[in-house]
Amino acid sequence: MSVKEVLQKSEFYGFLTDEQKELIISTSREALFKKGENVHRSDDKCLGVIYIEEGQLRVYMVSDDGREVTLYRLYGGDVCILSASCVLDAISFDVYIDAEEDTRGVVISAQTFKKIKSKNIYLENFAYKLATVRFSDVMWAMQQILFMGADKRLSIFLNDELAKTGHDTIKLTHEQIAKYMGSAREVVTRMLKYFQTEGIVELKRGELRVVDKHKLKNIIAGK
Amino acid sequence: MSVKEVLQKSEFYGFLTDEQKELIISTSREALFKKGENVHRSDDKCLGVIYIEEGQLRVYMVSDDGREVTLYRLYGGDVCILSASCVLDAISFDVYIDAEEDTRGVVISAQTFKKIKSKNIYLENFAYKLATVRFSDVMWAMQQILFMGADKRLSIFLNDELAKTGHDTIKLTHEQIAKYMGSAREVVTRMLKYFQTEGIVELKRGELRVVDKHKLKNIIAGK
Repeated sequence: MSVKEVLQKSEFYGFLTDEQKELIISTSREALFKKGENVHRSDDKCLGVIYIEEGQLRVYMVSDDGREVTLYRLYGGDVCILSASCVLDAISFDVYIDAEEDTRGVVISAQTFKKIKSKNIYLENFAYKLATVRFSDVMWAMQQILFMGADKRLSIFLNDELAKTGHDTIKLTHEQIAKYMGSAREVVTRMLKYFQTEGIVELKRGELRVVDKHKLKNIIAGK
Repeated sequence: MSVKEVLQKSEFYGFLTDEQKELIISTSREALFKKGENVHRSDDKCLGVIYIEEGQLRVYMVSDDGREVTLYRLYGGDVCILSASCVLDAISFDVYIDAEEDTRGVVISAQTFKKIKSKNIYLENFAYKLATVRFSDVMWAMQQILFMGADKRLSIFLNDELAKTGHDTIKLTHEQIAKYMGSAREVVTRMLKYFQTEGIVELKRGELRVVDKHKLKNIIAGK
């Protein structure tokens, strides 16, 4: 889709004035983020709102000592709003956003967004409503992180990976899995070894294969 | 203040039609919550938006096995929006809200709020912007819970309590402190004993006294 087509499909487009439509179309642009690229980080500037056409973005927080906790992921069809946090004054925190796959989308610049938002309550409401949807995502993540046992969390993660890729093999290191789960590598390694002895997975260097999906699902169901 | 006066001071009042003003004033009411009373809980109904005049509300989440984690607290002058979560479709989670002190305020019923919100974008935007402020509060809590050392978190908690009450003595059990901090009682007890040996606090049954505020602040500053 062209930049114009992507914007025309947005919720707020019909509420813009002709002048605002022209401004947003002329200043928005196609953007490509390479797998592994940092899209947004904690500083005073920000990119703007990203309409993701295809790919995957991971939104996470980082501790002083570099520990990462994944908050949520965004895929094709999703809109990334926290990459415009600098123009939303109700947001007083910052997150990191990386491309987990090659990602293509349309970016409405923070500047344009701010300019129109200050005159158009529908655009402002679009932004805050979307931020509230992400609030829901974060609350879900928090439930997982704070309350769930490590075995259950790892099972959910592996099950989600299988569903996403359609393969039995997951090509991730324990370090990467821990990072995605917001856990420690030691916890993941210990738990994976336990899963191996239980005949749930087979471990190889840099990858693992799920050999018993049924047992995995039993752990998730709390059986 | 009367119900009308409280509502007139709200951000959105000027954007209501005369009819909407009349509806909101005639259906809103003064409410009193006793210390310890549950104000909102996870079910399909909800109370509405609460303008707190005085008192304190604690917003928290609860795990399946009953563990509580405090997300944030609200005081006089704050507006509680998650008690109207049932009428905000971007919110797909639920929280618990208790009165921590006798609390007085004005409640706009969920029904009235929903009715006006569906016709008035300013009220909808008010709600989502406020929800985004709470999102910021929750992210702050999450930083504390996930990333900070137990010593630093406990120091911040004790320091906040001192600032709030103006006394050196904190009349809370280890169990209560743990609940407020979203930690385990064992962790709090262990850390308080360590603080005692360091000459930071004196422990008594059901209360503790901070004897060295300077050391407490050094821990917070990471010294």
